[in-house]
Amino acid sequence: MKKQLPFERGEFAARLSAVKKEMAKRGIDVLLLSEPPNQNYLTGYDSLSFYTPQMVIVTLNHDEPIWIARLMERPHAAMGTYLADDNIRTYPDEYVNSHAGLSAYDVMADLVKELGGEKARIGVEMGGYYYSARAHADLVRALPLAEFIDADLLVNWIRIVKSPAELVYMRQAGRVADAMVRRAFDTIEPGVRECDIAAAVYHQQISGTPEFGGGYDSSCLFFGAGERALTPHPQWTDKPLPASTTIYMEAHGVRLRYQVNLARTIVVGKPSAPYQKFTEIAIEALNVGLESVRSGRTCSEIQAAYAQALARHGYEKEARLGYSQGIGYPPASAERTASLRKGDNTVLQSGMCFHMMAALWLEDRSICITQPFVVTNDGHEPLTSTSRTLVVK
Amino acid sequence: MKKQLPFERGEFAARLSAVKKEMAKRGIDVLLLSEPPNQNYLTGYDSLSFYTPQMVIVTLNHDEPIWIARLMERPHAAMGTYLADDNIRTYPDEYVNSHAGLSAYDVMADLVKELGGEKARIGVEMGGYYYSARAHADLVRALPLAEFIDADLLVNWIRIVKSPAELVYMRQAGRVADAMVRRAFDTIEPGVRECDIAAAVYHQQISGTPEFGGGYDSSCLFFGAGERALTPHPQWTDKPLPASTTIYMEAHGVRLRYQVNLARTIVVGKPSAPYQKFTEIAIEALNVGLESVRSGRTCSEIQAAYAQALARHGYEKEARLGYSQGIGYPPASAERTASLRKGDNTVLQSGMCFHMMAALWLEDRSICITQPFVVTNDGHEPLTSTSRTLVVK
Repeated sequence: MKKQLPFERGEFAARLSAVKKEMAKRGIDVLLLSEPPNQNYLTGYDSLSFYTPQMVIVTLNHDEPIWIARLMERPHAAMGTYLADDNIRTYPDEYVNSHAGLSAYDVMADLVKELGGEKARIGVEMGGYYYSARAHADLVRALPLAEFIDADLLVNWIRIVKSPAELVYMRQAGRVADAMVRRAFDTIEPGVRECDIAAAVYHQQISGTPEFGGGYDSSCLFFGAGERALTPHPQWTDKPLPASTTIYMEAHGVRLRYQVNLARTIVVGKPSAPYQKFTEIAIEALNVGLESVRSGRTCSEIQAAYAQALARHGYEKEARLGYSQGIGYPPASAERTASLRKGDNTVLQSGMCFHMMAALWLEDRSICITQPFVVTNDGHEPLTSTSRTLVVK
Repeated sequence: MKKQLPFERGEFAARLSAVKKEMAKRGIDVLLLSEPPNQNYLTGYDSLSFYTPQMVIVTLNHDEPIWIARLMERPHAAMGTYLADDNIRTYPDEYVNSHAGLSAYDVMADLVKELGGEKARIGVEMGGYYYSARAHADLVRALPLAEFIDADLLVNWIRIVKSPAELVYMRQAGRVADAMVRRAFDTIEPGVRECDIAAAVYHQQISGTPEFGGGYDSSCLFFGAGERALTPHPQWTDKPLPASTTIYMEAHGVRLRYQVNLARTIVVGKPSAPYQKFTEIAIEALNVGLESVRSGRTCSEIQAAYAQALARHGYEKEARLGYSQGIGYPPASAERTASLRKGDNTVLQSGMCFHMMAALWLEDRSICITQPFVVTNDGHEPLTSTSRTLVVK
């Protein structure tokens, strides 16, 4: 099979080198990566196969990472990673949801021993989505001489700064997100079923643009009309839209696993004067927040600028103002690293990407106008071009 | 907010009663459910919010389950579950990806204490997707007097048998899966970009049918052309289809979170005579497997019937022949319970639903013609009506 990779080899080499450097600094000999975005980042592997045990192993003693998963996934790893054949390992299918008590983590432990890690300091992603309590218990049992260290987010904190090659995909993902919001606007009409509007938006997400295709997102489209617009993660129904309603939608543009989120409130009919005023306040605060962004400032400082602008009008936002994002796999594209919130003293660097999620969900009304962006030396570069206004149809 | 639930209250009461009975049998006082399908099954809660800590707690001493998640999710729980307000609990946003070392599991541990569970026997889902090694470590630390018991799959084994009300949604999901395969067939043409075909299939998935809407699936559409059809979980590209190729596609029809999988190989151009013969063998074995299904037989017996039919022609299938499915959330709709495989002695019961995944992935060719079905007293009821043939366009 021909290798099909989204980046040059040098890009992967730089990533691996940064990870190994951090491992050495923390005294980690062997790093077991269970998080799909981290596996993708270091090897290029991209398949929704991580619902069965799957690891990428980085050791200080081996040049390449070693990938291990279910036998049937081997051809995809051969085609979709740069790894040498011997660094693509598998376990038999009988280990999947075994009735006989077989654990794939025993096979992985044997591999760690083969790699010289029997008595190593082993880093694991304790808070990851795909490192269950049992996975950890099995590994600890099978490697009694090893020392386990929590290395959660080690790779996430490295990939928070995007390379120029990654930013190309982030910008493309942003264009898909723009196209999704436009498609929603074009499709929304009183009488159209919510599911048919959502279907059109999904069509756009996957089709992408005439120049490049899109991908599936790490969660789902959030789309709620009427009462459901008061909740942050609503689902569409199959009811037709009434003549007048408020819709909240969060779209996820995806390009080769890079994801950019963009949310808008869309009003069908005529918004009331008080609601328009409420909207203007939300946009003003968002813009103040965005204007405060630049390399060298902290996340907390950005949030403070936003919160102050909002407080001038007597409003407060309970939830964080935003999160860093990049490579996305279910269930989330947020990187679990920096948040735009009070007390997060992460210093912004050029190349970090955030979704400024300036939504306000109150008991009787909500407004959600957001902006994904890249941090630059002297400010920010928006990743989408949809105007920051209330959409009225 | 008006309660909006997909089932009658009696349905939820019966589920809860079955779970409590099993808890009592195992000596479990408090059950912490981290798996989204199990949370949905017991409360009706449906939102893609489980990327931050979220639990449903069942105790033998309380009538209703108690739901706990991030503050912003409260309105959705109020609207989408039957739970009394006091049984909807939350933790503040600062616990999400905390920089200050805050753990939402401390809040949950306090809730367990409030419910009288400080010294209880606590069941947890050790092998679940949303019960990380750290979640477990945090709970064990915060509840030092409790005894933790692995209750993984306790609820899964109960929900493996679908009620008549659930089967209504499963059949609807099957109709959506049929429509998705038909839409692919209608869209596939040489020269069309793979992503535009995938987009049309997604459109159908979400739009559903004229009678009812569809939902997002628990993973993604699997769609691979050419070499990628040799891998089980491929992604579309944005290349146009050539004049002659082989496509492998697995569609996921979803109705109110109930998911039915259906896969087909689609040949563009004229299949060769040897490939047609290969296809016939695969279909013959699938049909033999299906004919062997009935209540009272074991999973292993079904697999044996299939494997024997395949072996007559000199073929063997390494992977399991199928899996039970039902409520689906990312990353999988398979219930992690019964598999149609050698050695799985689960006895089939009426109302169990399986996807017979009779795919053969060889080095140089693949064939994938599958059948989702419900077990009945004297056989099986297919959940889809797409004919079990090679699709040629």
